[in-house]
Amino acid sequence: MRENKTVSNVVIRRLPRYYRYLTDLLADGKTRISSKELSRKMHVTASQIRQDFNCFGGFGQQGYGYNVEYLRDSIAEILGIKNGRTMIIIGVGNLGRAVSGYSAFEKRGFKTTGLFDINETIVGKEINGLTVMHESCIDAFVRENKTDIAVLAIPHTGAQEMADKLVSAGIKGIWNFSHAELNVPQSVALENVHLSDSLMTLSCKTERLK
Amino acid sequence: MRENKTVSNVVIRRLPRYYRYLTDLLADGKTRISSKELSRKMHVTASQIRQDFNCFGGFGQQGYGYNVEYLRDSIAEILGIKNGRTMIIIGVGNLGRAVSGYSAFEKRGFKTTGLFDINETIVGKEINGLTVMHESCIDAFVRENKTDIAVLAIPHTGAQEMADKLVSAGIKGIWNFSHAELNVPQSVALENVHLSDSLMTLSCKTERLK
Repeated sequence: MRENKTVSNVVIRRLPRYYRYLTDLLADGKTRISSKELSRKMHVTASQIRQDFNCFGGFGQQGYGYNVEYLRDSIAEILGIKNGRTMIIIGVGNLGRAVSGYSAFEKRGFKTTGLFDINETIVGKEINGLTVMHESCIDAFVRENKTDIAVLAIPHTGAQEMADKLVSAGIKGIWNFSHAELNVPQSVALENVHLSDSLMTLSCKTERLK
Repeated sequence: MRENKTVSNVVIRRLPRYYRYLTDLLADGKTRISSKELSRKMHVTASQIRQDFNCFGGFGQQGYGYNVEYLRDSIAEILGIKNGRTMIIIGVGNLGRAVSGYSAFEKRGFKTTGLFDINETIVGKEINGLTVMHESCIDAFVRENKTDIAVLAIPHTGAQEMADKLVSAGIKGIWNFSHAELNVPQSVALENVHLSDSLMTLSCKTERLK
């Protein structure tokens, strides 16, 4: 695949949606699709689809349409989910539990391998087949078990300190659900999920309908 | 407040972050702040801050800096959270429970007033002080109790049908955690949280660090 290494974050952020649609198309038995047909389904222009795919070498001849399976697998490879990803969850409250038990993640190749909490009443409990470990064990666990992603499902307080700890243990990807705006080195990927921001945006949209 | 009714979604999506920072500043006892100082804290340019605020009439004299409390309250008003918002949660699995028990939402004025599920083993249980009701009661509940927002924490299957039901009951805002891409009338605000997309984006970012 001829790939442009400087692909923008905007394009990267659109890839998961393509992946979702192509997975559904495959499940429906569809083997080939034109950019025009995909465009109609996804409500984006065919030219944007072609431009996005060209960032990664184009994924095959457009005249004949795309091979759905090849296209889906190629995008899975770019997303880094083709061979599976391991993740640990820090903070086993309701949110941590929701993430650890979310079948949609496992279906996409993300496997939760460790649960950590600081609360002694939770440590030792079995949740979704894993025994919750104390946060003091994170470093040793990460050094012994290949871990791609750490999910931060803890409150604002202590989030930066925990991020520093994860980075020094060798974690390369942090999925941050805390409200903290974290500082991590450029060698570490960070993705924030600010649920409160999303909820406030919705509130604002409903307000503006009036 | 002189407000431009055609403010773009991009600006609206930035408001919650301003709100968060201003709330923290207030908690730290800060009463006035210049766009320059806010810019340094938030890592956005002072000119973008001024442009964003000008969409809503400017929020006061820049020479003297902004009054933090007035600015925060004005943004809260635009976000529609000044007088509180009520929300119901459809689907009381781990995710629904996490949303209903998330203190950060309550702190921002969002109050969960009803929990609904279709699973008979969950209906009737008390969770975070509310008794879970059967989904068949949603329509009656919404008609009798002012409800601003419905949180869709159910799987893909049945999500569109549920959205249609919520719209016909009079709900004006849907916070969609299901993977379904929903169709709702223009008179209803929709905000999607595609957690899998966010996780795949993170995976892609870590892949590209290599």
